[in-house]
Amino acid sequence: MIDLGLRFKAQSDIFSDRMPPEKIRDVLVSELPDAPSGLDAVLSMFAQTVLPLCKNEASPHFVGFGDTGDDPAALAGGLLALLTQQNLINQSFDAPSATFVEMVVLRWLRDLLGYHNAPVSNIQTVWDVGGVITHGGTTSNAVAMMLAREHKAPGTMHVGVVNPNQFGIIVPRGIGHYSVKSALTWIGVGDQAIEVDTHAFRYDLTALERALHEHRDQVMSVVAYAGDSRTQTVEHLRRVYEIVSTADPRIWLHVDACWGLVAAFSDKFRYLLDGITEFDSVTVDPHKVMAVPYSLSALVVRQPASLRTVSSYSDLIMQEDYAFGQVTPFIGTKGWLSLKLWMMMLSHGRAGLAALAEHRVSKARRFAALLDEHPHMLRMHDPDLSAVAFVYLPSNVRPESTVTELEIDWINTVNQGIHDRMLAEGSWYLHQFSLPDDHGRLRAGATLYPFRFMANNPRTGEHHMAEVIDYVTKLGGNLEGELR
Amino acid sequence: MIDLGLRFKAQSDIFSDRMPPEKIRDVLVSELPDAPSGLDAVLSMFAQTVLPLCKNEASPHFVGFGDTGDDPAALAGGLLALLTQQNLINQSFDAPSATFVEMVVLRWLRDLLGYHNAPVSNIQTVWDVGGVITHGGTTSNAVAMMLAREHKAPGTMHVGVVNPNQFGIIVPRGIGHYSVKSALTWIGVGDQAIEVDTHAFRYDLTALERALHEHRDQVMSVVAYAGDSRTQTVEHLRRVYEIVSTADPRIWLHVDACWGLVAAFSDKFRYLLDGITEFDSVTVDPHKVMAVPYSLSALVVRQPASLRTVSSYSDLIMQEDYAFGQVTPFIGTKGWLSLKLWMMMLSHGRAGLAALAEHRVSKARRFAALLDEHPHMLRMHDPDLSAVAFVYLPSNVRPESTVTELEIDWINTVNQGIHDRMLAEGSWYLHQFSLPDDHGRLRAGATLYPFRFMANNPRTGEHHMAEVIDYVTKLGGNLEGELR
Repeated sequence: MIDLGLRFKAQSDIFSDRMPPEKIRDVLVSELPDAPSGLDAVLSMFAQTVLPLCKNEASPHFVGFGDTGDDPAALAGGLLALLTQQNLINQSFDAPSATFVEMVVLRWLRDLLGYHNAPVSNIQTVWDVGGVITHGGTTSNAVAMMLAREHKAPGTMHVGVVNPNQFGIIVPRGIGHYSVKSALTWIGVGDQAIEVDTHAFRYDLTALERALHEHRDQVMSVVAYAGDSRTQTVEHLRRVYEIVSTADPRIWLHVDACWGLVAAFSDKFRYLLDGITEFDSVTVDPHKVMAVPYSLSALVVRQPASLRTVSSYSDLIMQEDYAFGQVTPFIGTKGWLSLKLWMMMLSHGRAGLAALAEHRVSKARRFAALLDEHPHMLRMHDPDLSAVAFVYLPSNVRPESTVTELEIDWINTVNQGIHDRMLAEGSWYLHQFSLPDDHGRLRAGATLYPFRFMANNPRTGEHHMAEVIDYVTKLGGNLEGELR
Repeated sequence: MIDLGLRFKAQSDIFSDRMPPEKIRDVLVSELPDAPSGLDAVLSMFAQTVLPLCKNEASPHFVGFGDTGDDPAALAGGLLALLTQQNLINQSFDAPSATFVEMVVLRWLRDLLGYHNAPVSNIQTVWDVGGVITHGGTTSNAVAMMLAREHKAPGTMHVGVVNPNQFGIIVPRGIGHYSVKSALTWIGVGDQAIEVDTHAFRYDLTALERALHEHRDQVMSVVAYAGDSRTQTVEHLRRVYEIVSTADPRIWLHVDACWGLVAAFSDKFRYLLDGITEFDSVTVDPHKVMAVPYSLSALVVRQPASLRTVSSYSDLIMQEDYAFGQVTPFIGTKGWLSLKLWMMMLSHGRAGLAALAEHRVSKARRFAALLDEHPHMLRMHDPDLSAVAFVYLPSNVRPESTVTELEIDWINTVNQGIHDRMLAEGSWYLHQFSLPDDHGRLRAGATLYPFRFMANNPRTGEHHMAEVIDYVTKLGGNLEGELR
């Protein structure tokens, strides 16, 4: 089984086989047989029918995300977590040592981000640790929004939401992640994100000030991105903190640093996160930036005791000081996710994490340089971290002169067409999403559908970067011909 | 690593080493070193310092829960999920075949429970499937409560909670699981569970009718347990359905069948679940009853389209028909949890699942018989499934005559003392919790602190059952002597 899995991971293709979803559905959806099957038969069915259709994100051709999940120590941790079956819901009989491994990685993450850690002997409950491990950034962000709700109106956990209008959040327009907005719908305060204009993929600070004034008393939280989920641009966190705390110091400040955590690894990039420790909560996503297999996120909080406000209680299982089940909303039983991270971080050490960050950023800059040399490629931003968003420019478009709305439509048609074809062929993967042209590279105010390259994959080398640009160029040329 | 993990699982002890939490904390909590460590060094540190303190729930002496996580095919699925790194948030490039494996297991679960499945060709979106996979029963129950909230007041997702008083839920007093109550605090409707008296660990149906009448228009959901988390007593589901639907057909009916799923495996026990398909949603927990490693739960819904009411939308990643990320509140990125279950179910087949259920129930009955033969043991109920709750009776207590409140206190003191000592010694594990004496075995209305034996562990044999009873008797005798 290990061989089967590692051969799959090591293959250079993203997909061995590609089929439309309905065909896969028709092949795989069947009744549960009455008779048992031997494990060999099950594995052989898996290897022949299911596995060839799987995406291999560790392929050097998968350059649109970075969830390679291929760190050897993290894989070892995942394997041992699977076989040891600790349950982090409580400490005494379910996770005697795992509970403290979880605390250790939370403290390491806090330390990297610059948050203070209590002396070891002062950790006497889970509320002294200052963070929780969750299954993903969406859950972590939802917990953060619950902390904000409780901070705005203490006791809402018990009495329910009263006057939903007071629980608005401010997010940057067009570059936010859906998870904080969805969290509002889940926690009962309604879909009421207040979108504020951006400039160069960061808050337009004047617009932020104005929004805070206009929505006075209606805002429970301002959300900033340390590496947004499109271009990974890191917000000017200290300036956002200063503006928000001046306007209303009661507002809960949350940073989504799912991508930006990587900046905390190296002294060269830590300046990007200046001000982060003034924020009340920070979401990080080791499965995105540390090659840790799915899934693992953490929410770190400035004031550890704030987690008391969203705690659960049950005499069934969790009535003890070190039971993490008390401080993880939406989660009961929880496997030993943190072991993957403990092993990964120990195996790299601080020095190894710094090297990882530096390698990625320099690779992203190299990719940016390759784009700049190419007549058909236009970068949408200067990369802060490891993401580079760019568009394919059809032959007749000249970015130097005024680009019309009609030309924007044409650029989008071609770029979306390229992505569709790339997805159908499956030989390369670049991600695509909507993005405001926030640097005005083509037409200020336009919405574009760029590609996103991500430099997280250690197997993607210089020649792959050149090849994927050639591939996009080829598809673009073909499409231009066909569509005209 | 596999050897290390399997040796751990195969050891007969629950713990190799036992320490108070503060001592473990002081050993494990340390700074992240600057220098990298080789994987061998990390593994050796783990094997020497962390692993000996871990609990081994697959030990035959761990008889208080059943999360053995030791099904070979499920472990194979866990391993291959770890190495293949599919992300169930979307289908096209993240989980081309995994998405359909997830659908298959949901359909198998639906089928076992008796829910209708649409013809394969009619599954054209994730909203045609009728269920979601989540990380645990707590999350599944929270999604169910959100469905109930939206059913009671459509549009609450968008406008927020208005008038929290309309979102009450009815639960059975003293035997409910904290997760549904906690879910109310998370989803913004406030901590307002209405507890209804029970009889023999099921709703007192007259009291249920009265509560529905008294709280008319204030109830969004009635929650029933198909196997409560203490004695695994299965509710009379059809009668609850009849009473609730007569009183108010708009009420969302939810069953927590985390333990009761096992009754669906065998024709011998399926009658226990009669009426379950009248309920709007059902939570099941394969990691509890199918020896699947942590973690894996499912929420199954009567009307597949009801999941539309709690869906999320994002153009970042999920805008496609088969993206499960749209229908899993609180979760974004999600690993391939369902592969463990697919392999487990295929390897057992329907016949194997039936045998599993029958083996467990007969083992529980055998344990009950052993208790009945023993002068110091008193069962709290007749087991429906694989749990048996019982108390140690101190020498001077005679259940035949009237048991006083003072004697109840004494019984509780001794039983809680036994549990403390058992936990400290670590050679056996029986679970303990508060439980109403709902059969009046000692004193009707009293709250007891019984032990709970669980027959899920395949390694626990007849002699282990006798030994754990002897062990409790010995600890009880010692404690009686010391405490007098």
